[in-house]
Amino acid sequence: MKEKEVNEKKVKVIPLGGLEKIGMNITAFEYEDSIIVVDCGISFPEDDMLGIDLVIPDVSYLIENKDKVKGFFITHGHEDHIGALPYVLKDLNLPIYATKLTHGLIEIKLKEHHLLKRTKQKIVKHGQSINLGAFRVEFIKTNHSIADASALAITSPAGTILHTGDFKIDYTPLFGDAIDLQRIAEIGKRGVLALMCDSTNAQRPGFTLSEKLVAKTFDTLFADHTSSRLIIATFASNVDRVNQIISTASKFERKVVIQGRSMVNVIKVASELGYITIPENTIIEPEAMKQYPDEKLVVITTGSQGENMAGLSRMADATHKLISIKPGDKVIFSSTPIPGNEKAVSRVVNELSRKGADVIYQDTHVSGHACQEELKLIYSLVKPQYVIPVHGEFKHLKAQEKLAQSMGIPNENIFVLQSGNVLELSQKSAGINGQVKAREIYVDGLGVGDVGNIVIKDRQNLSENGLIIVLLGIEKGTNEVVSGPDVVSRGFVYIKESDEVMKNIKRVAEKSLDRFSNKSNWGKMKAAIKDDINEYIWKEMKRTPVILPIIMEV
Amino acid sequence: MKEKEVNEKKVKVIPLGGLEKIGMNITAFEYEDSIIVVDCGISFPEDDMLGIDLVIPDVSYLIENKDKVKGFFITHGHEDHIGALPYVLKDLNLPIYATKLTHGLIEIKLKEHHLLKRTKQKIVKHGQSINLGAFRVEFIKTNHSIADASALAITSPAGTILHTGDFKIDYTPLFGDAIDLQRIAEIGKRGVLALMCDSTNAQRPGFTLSEKLVAKTFDTLFADHTSSRLIIATFASNVDRVNQIISTASKFERKVVIQGRSMVNVIKVASELGYITIPENTIIEPEAMKQYPDEKLVVITTGSQGENMAGLSRMADATHKLISIKPGDKVIFSSTPIPGNEKAVSRVVNELSRKGADVIYQDTHVSGHACQEELKLIYSLVKPQYVIPVHGEFKHLKAQEKLAQSMGIPNENIFVLQSGNVLELSQKSAGINGQVKAREIYVDGLGVGDVGNIVIKDRQNLSENGLIIVLLGIEKGTNEVVSGPDVVSRGFVYIKESDEVMKNIKRVAEKSLDRFSNKSNWGKMKAAIKDDINEYIWKEMKRTPVILPIIMEV
Repeated sequence: MKEKEVNEKKVKVIPLGGLEKIGMNITAFEYEDSIIVVDCGISFPEDDMLGIDLVIPDVSYLIENKDKVKGFFITHGHEDHIGALPYVLKDLNLPIYATKLTHGLIEIKLKEHHLLKRTKQKIVKHGQSINLGAFRVEFIKTNHSIADASALAITSPAGTILHTGDFKIDYTPLFGDAIDLQRIAEIGKRGVLALMCDSTNAQRPGFTLSEKLVAKTFDTLFADHTSSRLIIATFASNVDRVNQIISTASKFERKVVIQGRSMVNVIKVASELGYITIPENTIIEPEAMKQYPDEKLVVITTGSQGENMAGLSRMADATHKLISIKPGDKVIFSSTPIPGNEKAVSRVVNELSRKGADVIYQDTHVSGHACQEELKLIYSLVKPQYVIPVHGEFKHLKAQEKLAQSMGIPNENIFVLQSGNVLELSQKSAGINGQVKAREIYVDGLGVGDVGNIVIKDRQNLSENGLIIVLLGIEKGTNEVVSGPDVVSRGFVYIKESDEVMKNIKRVAEKSLDRFSNKSNWGKMKAAIKDDINEYIWKEMKRTPVILPIIMEV
Repeated sequence: MKEKEVNEKKVKVIPLGGLEKIGMNITAFEYEDSIIVVDCGISFPEDDMLGIDLVIPDVSYLIENKDKVKGFFITHGHEDHIGALPYVLKDLNLPIYATKLTHGLIEIKLKEHHLLKRTKQKIVKHGQSINLGAFRVEFIKTNHSIADASALAITSPAGTILHTGDFKIDYTPLFGDAIDLQRIAEIGKRGVLALMCDSTNAQRPGFTLSEKLVAKTFDTLFADHTSSRLIIATFASNVDRVNQIISTASKFERKVVIQGRSMVNVIKVASELGYITIPENTIIEPEAMKQYPDEKLVVITTGSQGENMAGLSRMADATHKLISIKPGDKVIFSSTPIPGNEKAVSRVVNELSRKGADVIYQDTHVSGHACQEELKLIYSLVKPQYVIPVHGEFKHLKAQEKLAQSMGIPNENIFVLQSGNVLELSQKSAGINGQVKAREIYVDGLGVGDVGNIVIKDRQNLSENGLIIVLLGIEKGTNEVVSGPDVVSRGFVYIKESDEVMKNIKRVAEKSLDRFSNKSNWGKMKAAIKDDINEYIWKEMKRTPVILPIIMEV
């Protein structure tokens, strides 16, 4: 038998985000003069990123290589895959390739940021391939918690990389087709250089259940609670779930009220594009609710994660303009809390109960991600040479690594990457050969990147113990103190209690000043005031407010 | 048959905390001129209580009725039941009644707060009763995640109230006896006016598993991992668990290293009192670790909840002075995350994995609280006239209410109380007849109660968008601006980016001032500066920093 020729051509895989924690997915693929980018998502701020609204990736590498970058390929329409597009497109005016629903959801964002006109978008069908530079990218049907999700087969002269995107295997999806396992197997049979595989549920044994089970549970719930209003919270983006709830409501002859801006937006787009079928006269405006008895109503709302400003939280806090919770209401969470949101969800549940609502705990949610048995199936069909775990926290990537090992992938062929790593792959060899910039950029209000670690650190210090300002007026020329030291505080102690404390702090500042016979070295004077007050307050109160001495020249 | 005479005497039950959320358990029982208090705990601050270390109950009602209050009865030694004692004892010098281990743990606190000498303490045995004022209080053996936990049978002329404390039913505890169900039944048979029952797991069907199962899992884990160092994180207060780990370690001939201040403290007290048996030469100092190979070592550490400053977090962050995580280390969490801590735990797991440790997910934890079947057993034995759900969030109290209804307690005999409610109970009637003060008091450093909602609100505002200070020097007499407006900021934007922004803000302030031909109304001038800058920054950046105009007279 003749030995197969080894292809020595190299392709680079450069994740620019998404590997340190969940969210902010973006990966560049580079072959000679061509770069394509898969996904462009945000992540949500950690608890200690005070005041930050969202986090976007640093795409300096792409901007530096502007001439090479050909376009974006988007796997599906979730925020952690599309959310950063409007920010990144301001610097990189590139075409976007995506399936129909994904495209529709991206359009909402582009419209908001006034980028719709200048951005070239192309709707791709599953099974279709796009040729761009040195790459050919095929969109393959998968299942996920949003319709129209895709895996991408990314082929360059170096070989094919299969990127699963976020996915699960649903043999019996509620709407649309099952994942195209035949095509995945076919691509696998032809030879796959590398598999980039969703790791979110790589720690979970077994198989993720089908969305069809959720539909059954809803049927039961509607049948069991025929005399109360139903309020159902779920993810706006879970189009199939929302579709199912609307269809069950219609079957049980209930009117549907939609709450929450993103819920309204997504349903609008999804129904325009045919992903949600709304039977006539099913959806009513909230204002029309009073025309119907409770048992003829279903509210579908955002806020299943306990988000402060979302519909359900506002109902729970009695700050919702149109819907008041009343005894007898049944609230169903069609979701599980994302790690970190448990307490917020719990708070909402408590408030809803306090207002008399029954919270129903029957399970009306399945995950959108593949568990271990599904992952093993993908490995069996694809038989990749290399494996790059993606999507998930570090512990999930490590779990995928273990799973890959158990499926016979040699240890040295598995790459648990960090953002910014440049992984060079060929059939002959593979290794991390470089590092590009891959910071997180903070977005606060309209400001992008103008809040960094120092500012955040300041906010943390201010938030812990507040602030003490010491004011001093010094006369020009004579360097004499003509005013102050005066002490002002914010977030430090109760005003009524602060009198004595403030007087003492003033005295400490005066003593610090006394040490300077010549009051010309303002830097040293400020440092002395700061140190002395710091020491005093720590000794007396075990606190560490931010101390800000200010000298005015008058 | 002669009709039983109805006892019309009334006892008051006044929860001063612990009913709105988990923690801060404290309940007063009042009969005529006698008041006794059960438990005196702290709660931990919510995420939005910036800078707050812990929360203690407001005991104004007890202080106002100082002459009546006879003493504290403590059910067990967890922070949410004993933590506020040192603060409350400063105003209320009362005797404390508790079992031996509880007493030992309280002593550590009293020592730290220099209250040991003046506080009268009495160690009570299970089965023993204390007569105090109009009350007789019997301590009854229960099971919980700490040894020496008690239910209390609180008898006054109005009847007996059975307070379960935190409890579960463990027929086969690892150490000590099972819960004294016989005695509970006996008291039930004699007649119980009211049952105050742990609601923490009232939403969970079934039966909480025995601690014995955890012991078996540890045996398996030690047998399976004979070639690596083991690091086990658990609650310091779970004395039986720690005891079990030490005993398993000794069986497998490993040396034990203890990490974390509370772990060291609790083990010291518990072993002195005979609750932990430490085989000779088992515990070694961390410094001696290098004398032993990895497979001969077990580290027991705090930090199972991902707490920032605890042992395990410091190992994960490589800031631990004595222990560095290395590839091959096996880390076992003998705990489940308390709601709200999931993300912190996850962060620690990721960091540990990053350093090469394997985190073992085998289950080595059981709850310390009774599930539904256990609660039903208690109802069957006690057959109370009234029910007061305690311990848990509102949703848990409601679940207990449902369970009580299912056990035949009439709806009007179940009281889901709020802190401060005065519930009057007699065999003839029951109702909420009054309300006493029951705030939360914040402790920040050494300050108790000097940080309130206004200060917290200030800290929140500062933490979200930072602070802008506008300084103005105005000459005495002439009312002329002789200095400024100068602009200083903290936590607002990057310094390097702030130049232009700061200049613009200065300009806005100057314009505000121009509107005042006579610069004598400082209040109005400050308000104008604040409003104008606010408007400008919102328009330009969609942010809302705290704006602090300061005028100095010079």
